[in-house]
Amino acid sequence: MELVSRVLTGDRRALARLISQIEDEEPSVQEALSALHPHTGRAHIVGITGAPGTGKSTLVNELAKGFRRQGETVGIVAVDPTSPFTGGALLGDRVRMRDLAGDPGVFIRSMATRGSLGGLARATGDVVRVLDAAGFSVVLVETVGVGQAEVDIARTAHTTVVVEAPGLGDDVQALKAGLMEIADILVVNKADRPGAAQTVRALEVALELGWNSAAKSQGRWRPPVLQTVAVDGTGVGAVLEAIAAHRAYLQSSGLWDHRERERARADLMEALERGLMAWARSRVGEEELERWVERIVRREADVYSAVQALLGRCLGAA
Amino acid sequence: MELVSRVLTGDRRALARLISQIEDEEPSVQEALSALHPHTGRAHIVGITGAPGTGKSTLVNELAKGFRRQGETVGIVAVDPTSPFTGGALLGDRVRMRDLAGDPGVFIRSMATRGSLGGLARATGDVVRVLDAAGFSVVLVETVGVGQAEVDIARTAHTTVVVEAPGLGDDVQALKAGLMEIADILVVNKADRPGAAQTVRALEVALELGWNSAAKSQGRWRPPVLQTVAVDGTGVGAVLEAIAAHRAYLQSSGLWDHRERERARADLMEALERGLMAWARSRVGEEELERWVERIVRREADVYSAVQALLGRCLGAA
Repeated sequence: MELVSRVLTGDRRALARLISQIEDEEPSVQEALSALHPHTGRAHIVGITGAPGTGKSTLVNELAKGFRRQGETVGIVAVDPTSPFTGGALLGDRVRMRDLAGDPGVFIRSMATRGSLGGLARATGDVVRVLDAAGFSVVLVETVGVGQAEVDIARTAHTTVVVEAPGLGDDVQALKAGLMEIADILVVNKADRPGAAQTVRALEVALELGWNSAAKSQGRWRPPVLQTVAVDGTGVGAVLEAIAAHRAYLQSSGLWDHRERERARADLMEALERGLMAWARSRVGEEELERWVERIVRREADVYSAVQALLGRCLGAA
Repeated sequence: MELVSRVLTGDRRALARLISQIEDEEPSVQEALSALHPHTGRAHIVGITGAPGTGKSTLVNELAKGFRRQGETVGIVAVDPTSPFTGGALLGDRVRMRDLAGDPGVFIRSMATRGSLGGLARATGDVVRVLDAAGFSVVLVETVGVGQAEVDIARTAHTTVVVEAPGLGDDVQALKAGLMEIADILVVNKADRPGAAQTVRALEVALELGWNSAAKSQGRWRPPVLQTVAVDGTGVGAVLEAIAAHRAYLQSSGLWDHRERERARADLMEALERGLMAWARSRVGEEELERWVERIVRREADVYSAVQALLGRCLGAA
């Protein structure tokens, strides 16, 4: 595994190649990930998520620069909902590339949806682990936090920053609810725009509702609501401080280990699921599966009875 | 199964109860869905998806009224990204309720994220099938089409309407790419606003790029780009006509059956996956699974080798 040892030294071309292999779902990747696993677990994984138009790419850019000034190395994974139809990265990504390009302490990668959603979430998780193993001390995972899938991706982080902006439409406001739950830090970006104070107040009220006195007495983390103007860097320092404070809280409370365990469990279950399905498909055979599909379409069988029959067939001897 | 026979007669309280059971993942639901399966396959399932702020709820409302005037009965499933944190339906939904309330030919249901994304997608599919079995001739599935998950939900429809609006931010524009692929009909809503003509032109160009001469010669469906002002009903008639034309195209081309088969296959695979996991978990035991999680956390094992060991253990005799 020459590639693995090169990744462990932080070799950028090796990193890029391994990540491409992950995206292409090459079978050889599994071995590389296994070899890298003992070297993971050191990076602080920070998810940054927000609705479209909140300016989160700019914020990610500024956070990366701030971490660099503190001597951290930064991996950035931008989960990008563009598709083969356009084939390109987001504009924001190109802007970012220009800004951070040439800094050997920063590695940026966009992940596009190639196939299924599950595939994207899995690949993103694998890329985060690779950057962790490669020695980046902070890994920023940027997602468009409007779909549950993107929220799920953000959820794999140690610390989740949810970015809002004043003056987005009602529809977007309603979407925030799902994000509030996963926020460790709330940032109102574009805070120089009209309505910023109202947005901050609305978030504070929502937090107050969710964060009851029981939580208070248990000393649970209270997500701060911070304001930034990412385009000129205003307020970014306070976000960096909040991220560091959240990390310290996770470690002192034992939640850091808890989140590690949750992540390991989810990864194991997902891999087990895929292993079982591959086994069942090869055992039953594609033809037999197609016959059941046909029966379901003709309404001669329903999915539930089909599964019972298939399970009986492939697990009969087990 | 008294509940099933009441659902088959279109009894609204029975429908509401069964849908709640689906949302709560009650085990008894499986039997009801099996009993309803022979009665499904008649409804035209229309997905309506678009970014926040495009006014798609209003459009759904107007489409429902239009279908009603044509004598169709309409089930509406609004997939709602709000969460237990707020616990409420979207404002748009309440507006809609008021407008269509009291019409026995319309049934509206909001689906909220309760647990996992997979759970929501599955529950939405089940609710669509229930409304189909209950005899609604059109089922409209409204999703916020910005996340891949929502796109996946929309994908289960026969006909997918993608709603755009002029003047949304760049971020939102970039998000469109993923939606373009799944669009059978493109609607630029709020077409009385500045920039509508540009939005239409941009969509036409994007379509032209994706819709090459080969597709043209094969007589493939060319998504029309329509303009509406849903708040006053302008252009909604043309959208209804396009939906009917797409249905005729699906049926004459054999794609209707093809999509049925794809859906049946996806449902079967997902149910098989769940069945296998339930079996494996009970066979291996939660304690053993936790031991592997612990080994992964301690970097004594990696996910891949854990899965190999677990598969060997539970499939050894199979």
